[in-house]
Amino acid sequence: MAKLAEIVEFLDQELRTNEVPDYPGAHNGLQLENGGEVDKVAVAVDASLTVIEDAISVGADLLVVHHGMFWRGVRMMTGGNYRRLKAAFDSGLAIYSSHIPLDVHPQWGNNAVVAKEIGLEVDTKFLPWKGIELGISGQWTKTWEELIATVEAKVGPIISSVRCGEQVGRLGVITGGAGSEVEAVKASGIDTFLTGEGPHWSFPLAEELGLSVIHAGHYATETFGVREIGQKLAEKFGLKYDFLDHPTGL
Amino acid sequence: MAKLAEIVEFLDQELRTNEVPDYPGAHNGLQLENGGEVDKVAVAVDASLTVIEDAISVGADLLVVHHGMFWRGVRMMTGGNYRRLKAAFDSGLAIYSSHIPLDVHPQWGNNAVVAKEIGLEVDTKFLPWKGIELGISGQWTKTWEELIATVEAKVGPIISSVRCGEQVGRLGVITGGAGSEVEAVKASGIDTFLTGEGPHWSFPLAEELGLSVIHAGHYATETFGVREIGQKLAEKFGLKYDFLDHPTGL
Amino acid sequence: MAKLAEIVEFLDQELRTNEVPDYPGAHNGLQLENGGEVDKVAVAVDASLTVIEDAISVGADLLVVHHGMFWRGVRMMTGGNYRRLKAAFDSGLAIYSSHIPLDVHPQWGNNAVVAKEIGLEVDTKFLPWKGIELGISGQWTKTWEELIATVEAKVGPIISSVRCGEQVGRLGVITGGAGSEVEAVKASGIDTFLTGEGPHWSFPLAEELGLSVIHAGHYATETFGVREIGQKLAEKFGLKYDFLDHPTGL
Amino acid sequence: MAKLAEIVEFLDQELRTNEVPDYPGAHNGLQLENGGEVDKVAVAVDASLTVIEDAISVGADLLVVHHGMFWRGVRMMTGGNYRRLKAAFDSGLAIYSSHIPLDVHPQWGNNAVVAKEIGLEVDTKFLPWKGIELGISGQWTKTWEELIATVEAKVGPIISSVRCGEQVGRLGVITGGAGSEVEAVKASGIDTFLTGEGPHWSFPLAEELGLSVIHAGHYATETFGVREIGQKLAEKFGLKYDFLDHPTGL
Amino acid sequence: MAKLAEIVEFLDQELRTNEVPDYPGAHNGLQLENGGEVDKVAVAVDASLTVIEDAISVGADLLVVHHGMFWRGVRMMTGGNYRRLKAAFDSGLAIYSSHIPLDVHPQWGNNAVVAKEIGLEVDTKFLPWKGIELGISGQWTKTWEELIATVEAKVGPIISSVRCGEQVGRLGVITGGAGSEVEAVKASGIDTFLTGEGPHWSFPLAEELGLSVIHAGHYATETFGVREIGQKLAEKFGLKYDFLDHPTGL
Amino acid sequence: MAKLAEIVEFLDQELRTNEVPDYPGAHNGLQLENGGEVDKVAVAVDASLTVIEDAISVGADLLVVHHGMFWRGVRMMTGGNYRRLKAAFDSGLAIYSSHIPLDVHPQWGNNAVVAKEIGLEVDTKFLPWKGIELGISGQWTKTWEELIATVEAKVGPIISSVRCGEQVGRLGVITGGAGSEVEAVKASGIDTFLTGEGPHWSFPLAEELGLSVIHAGHYATETFGVREIGQKLAEKFGLKYDFLDHPTGL
Repeated sequence: MAKLAEIVEFLDQELRTNEVPDYPGAHNGLQLENGGEVDKVAVAVDASLTVIEDAISVGADLLVVHHGMFWRGVRMMTGGNYRRLKAAFDSGLAIYSSHIPLDVHPQWGNNAVVAKEIGLEVDTKFLPWKGIELGISGQWTKTWEELIATVEAKVGPIISSVRCGEQVGRLGVITGGAGSEVEAVKASGIDTFLTGEGPHWSFPLAEELGLSVIHAGHYATETFGVREIGQKLAEKFGLKYDFLDHPTGL
Repeated sequence: MAKLAEIVEFLDQELRTNEVPDYPGAHNGLQLENGGEVDKVAVAVDASLTVIEDAISVGADLLVVHHGMFWRGVRMMTGGNYRRLKAAFDSGLAIYSSHIPLDVHPQWGNNAVVAKEIGLEVDTKFLPWKGIELGISGQWTKTWEELIATVEAKVGPIISSVRCGEQVGRLGVITGGAGSEVEAVKASGIDTFLTGEGPHWSFPLAEELGLSVIHAGHYATETFGVREIGQKLAEKFGLKYDFLDHPTGL
Repeated sequence: MAKLAEIVEFLDQELRTNEVPDYPGAHNGLQLENGGEVDKVAVAVDASLTVIEDAISVGADLLVVHHGMFWRGVRMMTGGNYRRLKAAFDSGLAIYSSHIPLDVHPQWGNNAVVAKEIGLEVDTKFLPWKGIELGISGQWTKTWEELIATVEAKVGPIISSVRCGEQVGRLGVITGGAGSEVEAVKASGIDTFLTGEGPHWSFPLAEELGLSVIHAGHYATETFGVREIGQKLAEKFGLKYDFLDHPTGL
Repeated sequence: MAKLAEIVEFLDQELRTNEVPDYPGAHNGLQLENGGEVDKVAVAVDASLTVIEDAISVGADLLVVHHGMFWRGVRMMTGGNYRRLKAAFDSGLAIYSSHIPLDVHPQWGNNAVVAKEIGLEVDTKFLPWKGIELGISGQWTKTWEELIATVEAKVGPIISSVRCGEQVGRLGVITGGAGSEVEAVKASGIDTFLTGEGPHWSFPLAEELGLSVIHAGHYATETFGVREIGQKLAEKFGLKYDFLDHPTGL
Repeated sequence: MAKLAEIVEFLDQELRTNEVPDYPGAHNGLQLENGGEVDKVAVAVDASLTVIEDAISVGADLLVVHHGMFWRGVRMMTGGNYRRLKAAFDSGLAIYSSHIPLDVHPQWGNNAVVAKEIGLEVDTKFLPWKGIELGISGQWTKTWEELIATVEAKVGPIISSVRCGEQVGRLGVITGGAGSEVEAVKASGIDTFLTGEGPHWSFPLAEELGLSVIHAGHYATETFGVREIGQKLAEKFGLKYDFLDHPTGL
Repeated sequence: MAKLAEIVEFLDQELRTNEVPDYPGAHNGLQLENGGEVDKVAVAVDASLTVIEDAISVGADLLVVHHGMFWRGVRMMTGGNYRRLKAAFDSGLAIYSSHIPLDVHPQWGNNAVVAKEIGLEVDTKFLPWKGIELGISGQWTKTWEELIATVEAKVGPIISSVRCGEQVGRLGVITGGAGSEVEAVKASGIDTFLTGEGPHWSFPLAEELGLSVIHAGHYATETFGVREIGQKLAEKFGLKYDFLDHPTGL
């Protein structure tokens, strides 16, 4: 049993919630209070109705997510949104959200853990944005085929890819939906870019730029950070935790 | 006992909720669902924590307010905002909000009822905004002193006033916080303007323009519309209703 | 042999190039002139370097595309962009682009042809945008399984899908990348939405809204309109035409 | 007798007129020249027609105000605005305006003098804005009742107030119309906020936040700074000065 | 002797001062009142200090200008601006300004009178802007050389010109500084464009577009409208009037 | 014979192409590649069709201009724009553009060379803009008449001028179209301003401010920088170069 306030303070501090910039819709931090006590934590990528119902069914008091409840601004508390909030309020489920602070955390971050999982030794950050850098990169010393195989084994099935050039040299990683950044990625000296998803138009553009791109899934690349948080909260506060897996195939 | 869905449909239609323009923060309509049944209605100016607690203590299932819960955009569901929502979710209190649609309703509107209460025969609308007109006006056939006395008797204590000229001719009414519109009001041919509140700078400007202005309170001038709604819901659906009075002195 | 000017006049008129609204980057119409004569036409989805090289190798004088060369604003004529333009200038390849005018054309449009291919009888337009409507819909009278099978057979492999509810009723179609419009689509009375691509976050949101969504590929859903144009130019001007297929898997 | 140019140079330097940020409408500094000589100074809160007429009737050559003539941008020199300017031009009345530079001046400022008048020992600034801080705060060591009584005695009648909590701890002061800043004020660690005016909606919000607020009048809280200037000019240049009192009740 | 109010009412009505759109800095109408009587009118292009001093020296009570006093927004009433206003206030000189309403007036307008002076029969308007059209055009039936000679004789010396093509066909006229509109002018079907001034870059662009352009001076092309107003006021109200000529060479 | 890539690298470094700010339309650097070799350079002010045809007729492989091809954003490659690009692609003419980086270069810059040509000893920069300063100034120790004569002799015919005051003291220089900056120029302590062009309204304003202004032609004042580049490339890479003179009279 731990105090919600202590967990929130710990996460805010570790993730630098009030300092790391983010999109206006992110609203990082504690999005929903509960009665104040936490016995079990659930972690997940999205704060969807299904995930919240699952969190309740496994007995969680706190749900930590990567994508919080407020992305689309104020929404009437009716229909699906009402049911989602009603379930959380009724069961005393607190919700904590961490988006870019979690992506870029040097140890727990989605970027960092994906790089570690595929065996990439990171030496550089890239893609500056509002005072931070959104991506990390390193030299890939094996072949393209080995890269594909490792991603499939450690992250998930490749959604689509475009290959330019025989060798892989500098490999850049940004988890989630960074596929439209191909121009800035290429300008950073990267020749192969691993990300989650991107729009159709980014592939002809990547070809023109001579940048190889791999889409390994927005969802799949962002499951790592919340699992790290679950582990850390378990260790630090002696709590149980569950990862709730709800892939979208995207 | 009535269905929430039927009440919402009735109010949306009568108030033209989806057609009347409003400020981005207003979010008119059903802001919070409940289980679907309504036995008792509460009406109030603001959806504050105190009002919601009062609504619950009088046994209301539906609270109709002029100023809803979402004016300041997305807010974390923590602290006072958490307690407010927790109380409403727990007790099954639905919340319906109507701002400008209620101000300008030709019979139930705050403007219309204030004019009727003080005995002003309305013949003109003024102050065009996004396709509607925010104010109503008529000829005042009595003296300034009688106007002041009537407002005090029927609406509430005068907060402050500035008087330009001996006579009152055309009297314009906009309830709530329209005091900064003195330039446009004067340009509409009005010589005396009754509103709820306004900033300090509007009084020297009114003097320069030669416009008399009376501030009768933002809160006080906006209690009329929600009471009309309470009355209409009582008649139409056979429900009980309470007006919950929480003045701010502003 | 036909005059380029006559073909351009014909296309501008049929597609209402100067009247249909579009995104600022689209620049519909003749993007690149040539010497004035056209003997063979190539049609494709994208104006990428590879496509332009293919168009030249099949001997085309005119390339008609859905996504033109100028989406990302002014670009230096260097690197891949130089090679693309150099190839086109050297071989006398004119380029004509038609984006939303082609999506929404009532007979040739990507929307209209996809609907015809899957056997959907269209009776309504939806999703208003700048004075036009971007989507078309009709009643689907068969099962979800038959819908999936038909799309796979006639359009291409399903990228991903989310299913809400057992039955399919009103089926809406917008080709290309309209997946982020789920909220507006649902509000149009549609229960099943066929589009090309969409972001990860649209799937949890669709679930909350109760909208089934099928992503059949941005590229795959937009191959139909340009093929119709090729056919029409062949008939009207007695020209040969080739469809150049360069899928991205997205 | 003093030179206008010397007085202006002194005020610009002391008040840091060209460095302190302000709202676009403020236009701090010398707003209207005269023939160049100053024998008597008048100080007032507003540059209204009545104030200007008073300044002339007391024989002033220079009027120093907190709210200048240009807040609402360009205005035709007709009607009341013509009469105001005509009077000033005819009598050779120069006008100098100082808004935020005067609010935040560490000795002469409205904030500083109000704090001194009510016996608050200031130790902190708060509410950052464009590189400065708009408010000052300190610990209030007496009761709420003593605070109310002191404000009434030293500043003016309380317009309205909302009380949250029994004790007063950290008291923040921003003169004028800062009432809508309750959220940022609370987030600065302040529990009791003394300001001039604020909108109706700020009171329910303050209640939710748990912030006590006192409105002592926009006009009343801003009479202090200009009186300090009058005193300083009298001392420095051997001039007579009058404070012209024209309260609005707001 | 006439009443200022009657003159203003006449001009506002004839020029449609409150209906014709303009740039934000224009502020058409009576910019400065006087004591109410007008015996003599001066007209000029600009409301500069020199012009105002001239108007006073010829004994004018009203100055009508094309470019008023407020183009650059609020300006401190110091230095040259103080002297300008001081002179006008002291001598009782009212100032009335009319910019685009005067350019486009069908009989008095700068466009219309320039066209009449050079013998162009106008049959069409062009260049739509905020609901009006800024230019007028007609067929020029003589040579380029005759056009140049007529402009020099009737309007003033050519500042610069660029000639594309041997013949003049459709001649468009916009007085003042419309030279940067060459792209829109050419797209209106005009081959020769007479205007007052334009930037350097507009000449290479005009060459590329195949549009001949003549700059006859911003000042010179805009002296016609105010002279028409002078004439009309003289006729209508039995007043004397002077045209005050202050060319800039631009 | 030199490599295009080496020339571009040299120019980018010397001119600080990627660091100096500019207007969005400028697109400084290599705008159009060629096959990679450069034997002869042409330099000119504008990249117009006529200039490009001239560059080709003198056998140039690289054209360096002050005003590049992309000022007006994306333009269809049709008509005059097609002919311009077609000519350049066909003849292998690379195009390099440098706008503000060339204006402000301390030795090669248009400002610096104009100042040197007229014998002005520069000691100060003025007019801050995005972190750089756009103008340079020094004390003029001779008369106004000598200044006019020197400008006419060294730069070109005076287009127009306005003179305020007998003496010339501090002379500021900004080549090109900086005439509308008179207010900021005067506030920098400059009494005489030499620039290329400016709008009509800037002359009455300069008079009011007491600033003398000389317009020596946008084109004429900007021929100096590209000629310096031609010279430097000739020296550094052993290339021939031609200056292509195409004045607009503006």
